Amino acid sequence: MKDNFQNRRTIRKYLPDQVEDKIINEILSDGCRASTTGNMQVYSIIVTKDAAKKMELSPLHFNQKMITEAPVVLTFCADFNRFNKWCRINKAEPGYDNLLSFMTAAIDALLVAQTVCIAAEARGLGICYLGTTTYMAHKIIEVLNLPGGVVPVTTLTLGWPAEIPEQVDRLPLEAVVHDEVYKGYSEENIKRYYKEKEERSDSKQFVAENKKETLAQVFTDVRYKKSDNVHFSKVFLQVLRDQGFMNQ
Amino acid sequence: MKDNFQNRRTIRKYLPDQVEDKIINEILSDGCRASTTGNMQVYSIIVTKDAAKKMELSPLHFNQKMITEAPVVLTFCADFNRFNKWCRINKAEPGYDNLLSFMTAAIDALLVAQTVCIAAEARGLGICYLGTTTYMAHKIIEVLNLPGGVVPVTTLTLGWPAEIPEQVDRLPLEAVVHDEVYKGYSEENIKRYYKEKEERSDSKQFVAENKKETLAQVFTDVRYKKSDNVHFSKVFLQVLRDQGFMNQ
Repeated sequence: MKDNFQNRRTIRKYLPDQVEDKIINEILSDGCRASTTGNMQVYSIIVTKDAAKKMELSPLHFNQKMITEAPVVLTFCADFNRFNKWCRINKAEPGYDNLLSFMTAAIDALLVAQTVCIAAEARGLGICYLGTTTYMAHKIIEVLNLPGGVVPVTTLTLGWPAEIPEQVDRLPLEAVVHDEVYKGYSEENIKRYYKEKEERSDSKQFVAENKKETLAQVFTDVRYKKSDNVHFSKVFLQVLRDQGFMNQ
Repeated sequence: MKDNFQNRRTIRKYLPDQVEDKIINEILSDGCRASTTGNMQVYSIIVTKDAAKKMELSPLHFNQKMITEAPVVLTFCADFNRFNKWCRINKAEPGYDNLLSFMTAAIDALLVAQTVCIAAEARGLGICYLGTTTYMAHKIIEVLNLPGGVVPVTTLTLGWPAEIPEQVDRLPLEAVVHDEVYKGYSEENIKRYYKEKEERSDSKQFVAENKKETLAQVFTDVRYKKSDNVHFSKVFLQVLRDQGFMNQ
C-alpha cells in the first residue's frame, strides 16, 4: 500500500486495450465512498469513451494527446443541479446559487476524483490530470451538455500504462508542512527547498530550450503566464455567473 | 485494498493516544506524491497538535468536538506565497494573483488532502473532514498566521478510531455518473435515486426532530440555509480579494 503512494507516476501513454466497464464502475464506486459535505454528493462524473466525443474534447484540453489516446476520459463536475431538483420536488427552496456552494461542490468533486485515481492505480491503471479543465470550462460545458448548477473542475485520462516514466521531483516535506502556524520563508530557505528541482537535468534542459535565465522564468514567462491567467480567470468567473454560482 | 475504499467511514471519535510523528510524516509524504499542476506544489499543510491552538481553532469550526478531541488537526491551504517568493528570488515576475490561480492551488491542496486521508486510513487511522474551513477562512487565516497568497480550503481531524460507526448511505452510482453527455434528470429518476436516502430511519428521525415535512427541507431550512450560504459567500469572496486572488 505504501508503495502505491510513494512509487506512483502520472501516466501519459496508454496501451490501446479498453478498460472493462466492470473495472470503471468499481473505481467510480470506490470514488463515491469519499467524504462529501453533509452527504449531499454534489458532484457528477462524465465518462467519455466515444472517439468522436474525445475529438471534440481534445482542443479544449489544448490537444494534449492523452485525451484521444486514453481509452477513458473522466470529467469531474461540481453539481448542484441534481440536488436542487430533489429539493424542489420535495417542497424545499434551495439556496445554493452562490460561491460558497460552488466551493462545497468543487471540493466534493475533487475528493472523488482523487479517490478514483488511487483506486485506479491500485488496480494497475495509470492516470493523468488535465488542469486545462478550469481554463476551458465554458467550452467543456457546451460539449458535455452541462446544465446550470454544474461546473467542470478537473479531468482525468485513464488507461493501462504503456510506459513507466521516471518519477518527477517533489519539494522536501518540510518545505510544505508547517508546525502549528505558517512559517515565514527566508530567501535562504526558499533557495534550499528548490535547489534539487533547479539542479535536475530536465529543469536545466527546460531553461535552455526556452532560452531563459532561470527555471522560475519558464513558469512565469512560458508555461503559466500572467496574461493567460488573467484571461482565463475572467472566463472562469463568467462561467460561475452563467452556471448560477455568483448570487451572493 | 478494495475493502479500504468500500468499507470506509468518517471517524468522529478518537482514542486519546497520540499519532507518532513518524506516521504523520509518512502520510503527509504519501499525500505529497499526489498530482499537482505543473509540479508547482502550490499548497501548504498546517499541522496542529498543541491543545491551546486547537482551542483557538475550535469555535472557527463551530465547536465541532473533533477539533479538540482528535490528536491531530491538518489544515490544507491553497498557497502561491512560497512559489511567488521563489519566482521573485529568481528574476521572474509571478502572475498568480487571480481566480484561475486560486483554483489551481485549491485543486492541488484538495488532491493532497484526499491522498493523506486514504494513506491514513490504510494505516488504520480515522479521519473527518471539516467543511467549516471555507465558511471561516478569514478567522483561520488569523489563527494560523496565513500570509497573502494563502487560503485554507479544507481541514481534517486525524486519530486512532474509538468507534466504528454505521456506514452512511450513498446515491446509486448511476445517479452521479453520466455516459458521454450529462443526462437530464426526470422527476421520476430523482425520486428513485433519493428513495433509499429518504427512507432511512436516521433520515426520518432528522425530519421529525426538525419538525419538517421532507428531508430536503432539513437541508434547505436547517443545515445549509440560503442566508448562511449568502453571508459566507460574501466573506469568502472578500478572503480571496484580501489574500490577493481576485486581480483579473
